Amino acid sequence: MNAELRTPYDFSGLGAMLTPRSVAIVGASGDPTRIGGRPIAAMLKAGFKGTILPVNPTRDEVQGLACYATVDDLPEAPEAGIVAVAAKHAPEVVDALGRKGCRSVTLFSAGFAETGADGERAQEDLLAIARRHGMRVLGPNTLGVYNVEIGYYGTFSSSLELAFPLSGPIGIASQSGAYGAHLAAMARLRGLGASVLITTGNEADVTVADAIGWMAGADEVEVILAYQEGFRDGPKLLAALDAARAAKKPVFMLKSGRSSLGASAAASHTASLTGDDAVAEAVLAEHGVIRVRDTEQMLDFAYAARPRIYPASNSLGIITVSGGAGIVATDEAAEQGLPMPLMPEAAQAKLLDLLPYGAPANPLDCTAQALNDLSLFEAFTRSALADGGYRSILCFLTYVAGGASLAPRLIKTLERLRAEFPDRLLALCIIADDEKVAAYERAGCLVFTDPSRAVRAIAAMGRVGAAFTAPEASRPALPSVALPQTAPDEHQAKALLGGAGIQAAPERIVRSADEAARAAADLGFPVVMKIVSPDIVHKSDIGGVKLAIADEIEARAAYGDILASVAASAPGAHISGVLVARQLSGGVECLMGISRDPVFGPVAVFGLGGIFVEILNDVAIRTCPFDHEAAKETIGSIKGASILKGARGRPAADIDALADMLSRLSAFAAAAGPRLVSIDLNPVLALPDGAFALDAVIELDEEARA
Amino acid sequence: MNAELRTPYDFSGLGAMLTPRSVAIVGASGDPTRIGGRPIAAMLKAGFKGTILPVNPTRDEVQGLACYATVDDLPEAPEAGIVAVAAKHAPEVVDALGRKGCRSVTLFSAGFAETGADGERAQEDLLAIARRHGMRVLGPNTLGVYNVEIGYYGTFSSSLELAFPLSGPIGIASQSGAYGAHLAAMARLRGLGASVLITTGNEADVTVADAIGWMAGADEVEVILAYQEGFRDGPKLLAALDAARAAKKPVFMLKSGRSSLGASAAASHTASLTGDDAVAEAVLAEHGVIRVRDTEQMLDFAYAARPRIYPASNSLGIITVSGGAGIVATDEAAEQGLPMPLMPEAAQAKLLDLLPYGAPANPLDCTAQALNDLSLFEAFTRSALADGGYRSILCFLTYVAGGASLAPRLIKTLERLRAEFPDRLLALCIIADDEKVAAYERAGCLVFTDPSRAVRAIAAMGRVGAAFTAPEASRPALPSVALPQTAPDEHQAKALLGGAGIQAAPERIVRSADEAARAAADLGFPVVMKIVSPDIVHKSDIGGVKLAIADEIEARAAYGDILASVAASAPGAHISGVLVARQLSGGVECLMGISRDPVFGPVAVFGLGGIFVEILNDVAIRTCPFDHEAAKETIGSIKGASILKGARGRPAADIDALADMLSRLSAFAAAAGPRLVSIDLNPVLALPDGAFALDAVIELDEEARA
Repeated sequence: MNAELRTPYDFSGLGAMLTPRSVAIVGASGDPTRIGGRPIAAMLKAGFKGTILPVNPTRDEVQGLACYATVDDLPEAPEAGIVAVAAKHAPEVVDALGRKGCRSVTLFSAGFAETGADGERAQEDLLAIARRHGMRVLGPNTLGVYNVEIGYYGTFSSSLELAFPLSGPIGIASQSGAYGAHLAAMARLRGLGASVLITTGNEADVTVADAIGWMAGADEVEVILAYQEGFRDGPKLLAALDAARAAKKPVFMLKSGRSSLGASAAASHTASLTGDDAVAEAVLAEHGVIRVRDTEQMLDFAYAARPRIYPASNSLGIITVSGGAGIVATDEAAEQGLPMPLMPEAAQAKLLDLLPYGAPANPLDCTAQALNDLSLFEAFTRSALADGGYRSILCFLTYVAGGASLAPRLIKTLERLRAEFPDRLLALCIIADDEKVAAYERAGCLVFTDPSRAVRAIAAMGRVGAAFTAPEASRPALPSVALPQTAPDEHQAKALLGGAGIQAAPERIVRSADEAARAAADLGFPVVMKIVSPDIVHKSDIGGVKLAIADEIEARAAYGDILASVAASAPGAHISGVLVARQLSGGVECLMGISRDPVFGPVAVFGLGGIFVEILNDVAIRTCPFDHEAAKETIGSIKGASILKGARGRPAADIDALADMLSRLSAFAAAAGPRLVSIDLNPVLALPDGAFALDAVIELDEEARA
Repeated sequence: MNAELRTPYDFSGLGAMLTPRSVAIVGASGDPTRIGGRPIAAMLKAGFKGTILPVNPTRDEVQGLACYATVDDLPEAPEAGIVAVAAKHAPEVVDALGRKGCRSVTLFSAGFAETGADGERAQEDLLAIARRHGMRVLGPNTLGVYNVEIGYYGTFSSSLELAFPLSGPIGIASQSGAYGAHLAAMARLRGLGASVLITTGNEADVTVADAIGWMAGADEVEVILAYQEGFRDGPKLLAALDAARAAKKPVFMLKSGRSSLGASAAASHTASLTGDDAVAEAVLAEHGVIRVRDTEQMLDFAYAARPRIYPASNSLGIITVSGGAGIVATDEAAEQGLPMPLMPEAAQAKLLDLLPYGAPANPLDCTAQALNDLSLFEAFTRSALADGGYRSILCFLTYVAGGASLAPRLIKTLERLRAEFPDRLLALCIIADDEKVAAYERAGCLVFTDPSRAVRAIAAMGRVGAAFTAPEASRPALPSVALPQTAPDEHQAKALLGGAGIQAAPERIVRSADEAARAAADLGFPVVMKIVSPDIVHKSDIGGVKLAIADEIEARAAYGDILASVAASAPGAHISGVLVARQLSGGVECLMGISRDPVFGPVAVFGLGGIFVEILNDVAIRTCPFDHEAAKETIGSIKGASILKGARGRPAADIDALADMLSRLSAFAAAAGPRLVSIDLNPVLALPDGAFALDAVIELDEEARA
């Protein structure tokens, strides 16, 4: 998979912002605690490998560096410009930087889109200036960026006064400056190396998606942590995620606004379009993102990614000296859907011979005895790796592993096992001092204290592996779709969809009682008859639908009844005719639909009819288009999927036919273009043999040009 | 609420085990790393306030103490006896201790019930010896106990070699020794004081329930952490939990075996009856236990309980300097069901005057500006407390609060607010060094780094408060129930339940076609007719049920058809007659039932009919008996409850009638005694006015004596 081939996005453009050889700080200050002083102080302290060019009309020297009065006076064109001046001066500074040949600007200045409509206009003007000069823009209202590897600190975060970040393979991309810096500080507290921080602020130009895309191609970063409130540019985000996946760099994302309460807080906080969280959830999963629940989980997963072992077909073997801890871990594995197959019987017998009171099934309880005799621990663990074949191993050894005499011997044992099985994920649940923890880590083990957190991290590494090795979904062929000028009526909608291979029950439109009787006889009884009118949406409410029509006499009568009811209730409605359709029965009622997400374009929705959707909100969502296999997976992912497979004594529904319809619908939506607002096929009847749309509503944006 | 009055359990009996004035160690060792040496070494180091009496026939002196050859030689009767000898010698030692007048024994010895049937018998024999002498028994196969307050260490845990526990109000009760000690070591790592650890091992006598009950009355303990795999003695557990609640000591419990995988691991690990996790979940919730998901959550909650502020009607106000962190916390509050009402409009206006670019709704975003000008932070926080009236406040101040110049001023501010609002829970989300964290804690604040974990802990304190202040449910009057000798048929079952006020649809049993027609006419059409036979369970499958009988002719015919079908399919069955019942329709189909939990006795189950139970397992469970209010709460707790309230355009069902039926059913089950195995009322039809059982099956234990 080569993301470059698939996308028009060039994420390497951020290089000038993150790996500059020279940086101008406009609004430079001699005070290392002021916004214009902090970046300089930090770079001096960290030994920035490039040239620092302070700009301030009132000073000749800043923090020991030569200072220039204006941007024009600079001796060279800086690759990066940091703008630490008041909002009203920002435009002239950005323009001057552009004229000088600067390639990127980081705008600390606040007072733009985050303050309302005036600020939004000012931000657009500022962006236009930068674009004219071909400069990329970070911010405005950003806390900035840093890159530990080259000592570049284009940030005014005061966290640097407490501690500098550690060098290491984690990259952090955060829309929120304070949250991003908090996350970085937490990583520092845990001893995790995070070389790159990018906070995007108002995202006039550079977004979290750009940051992810850049990290996908950056040598400094192997693991990406992202915080995002809402997405703006769907295709760019997906291109960035695909680039990260292609580079085998996991993306752990905290996407906030998951509750409606949180989303409304997000909306009040930024101008960003938070969108529908359910769509975001589906999109992130499709593109291999591991969505995390909280900050600590993000850091746990980043830590667990350190050995870069991502077991695609994950399974867990637990070696424990405590039955209790084994059960706690097993509960969590079940919760995470992480398989814990039992050990092969022959291997169990072998281990029971070694330790008669052990429990070698899985968890493998080798009892405290194994810590008196480490050869027992080694035998149990090797057997789990070799005979059990588990891709991941968790050893619960508690504080005993922290003992001064045991630790060195245990580390030797683990080193041996590590060397024999280099592709397995080895995790320990122990309590030990920092030095011993570091020694266990050097032996190639992950170290946790809480068994449940360890299991969650192991499960996440498996999900990363699955995402990395998932075959790329084939893109279905798109039909040619010619949308009408105005919204089609039911019959027209079904015909339009029928052209894309989406099947409705056999039906005919009629315009007289005689025609109705004839059509019904041709289609076969029972039939259903419905009014067709572009002006009537709720047909049943006004007597526009008759069900279970059993013969020609009833069909004739129904025609008259329907027209009379409609004439009485909706006298002005334009009547296209009456639809006569074969009334199918049995099977499972489903619904399918398309809605246009403002960020990700058309998304398909699938669910079962009735309470599943209406009460339980049990639907699956996927971005369009997608192939038959993806459709099947989508259908199978709803909670009520067992209904389709024949639960409660029903015959199984034709899931292949449903998947075929859903995939075709997704292709139709992708081909139809932005005038398509929504499609509702409700119900779709899934029979044991075939699936049929019994109703179809297509909504178009009639203001857009056809 | 006075637990003592309600229960026959005397939990103070554990005093001899946990606060002994003298202790004999039988199997005493001079080597402080051996099982018989560790307790002595630890008590010497900790300065145990009582007398230590080593017993070992081969030594005169042990670790500097006078050693006695046998128990009989001891100069006094020890309150506690620690038995650190091989299993085969344990009986004689326990007997000798009993004879000497010892009041409790802690049995380190392993090789009893955990090893199989022989061991189980040996354990029973050992227990019988102890009981004969009136001694309480901890273990066998226990890691022991400790009580930091008096320096008592009746444990051989090697964790003491790394660090001694800190004195403090947490008590830990754990079935698993290694897990309990691991939890204690994790608490130590986090600087949490946990003075008491009780590990119960094989639980021959003392169980986790006893430990909880003792802690409820012990001055040392204010917060109880419990780990349990399975419960054995329901009434004792409930008495202990009620005693803890009455003493206003929260119980945070990790109950493992929540997955079937985990439960099977639990079953293989101990002989303990793990029972049905869903029943345990319901029981724990009823008795105010906060069930935790993992070890870290247990410690988070124990930490948050430190100020002992448990807001019964909890609400959360978030003060933040970062919009992003505010949204993350808001998402978590929504997930936890923790209300975050908006600030009153007048207060918002006042705060906007102070800080025009702030967002004072809730979260209250006072921006980074508030950290430059602490009076802004103070104004926002005071307004949240005074005007917003939030019972809990979370301030996100990140690493800025760790700054050397800001921290002391911020602490002063918080101290002022703390003094003004002493009953509110104040939590901070900050990053600071240990010393500053301790200073913030001394100012009366909880300190977290992860905003989501902070919110979960705050929500848990609210749940504790709600449990502490919940009015005690009234116990419904029990009907007098006379169960028949053998299982009643449907008609008899309905009559029996009818005697307890549980209403079925009007019905009559008939024994001829004439009678059927007459009964049907009297009851009113339509009717349903069903075969009544103790020998036929699946009536429909063999043509034993006819629905929608519209007139007398059909009723007559149905009678003959039913008898003919049954005669053909089940020729030997005893036929009691045919039931004619008014066929009710409309409303919502529910089901109610009783099953007998081996630990907690009769439990009632309520759910909606069809897929809700069969596919979604959406049921509520409660132990019997319970009153109308509790029944209503139970009914309202299912996911599909909105169906009963009239979702999807249906009329609302008569929830009061359902609750009445469910409460009466619970009282019936409680009165019926242990011969009642189960009751199934399926379906129960909940109409807009009234609820009726349409079928009833009562299963009895026919081997038990009536």
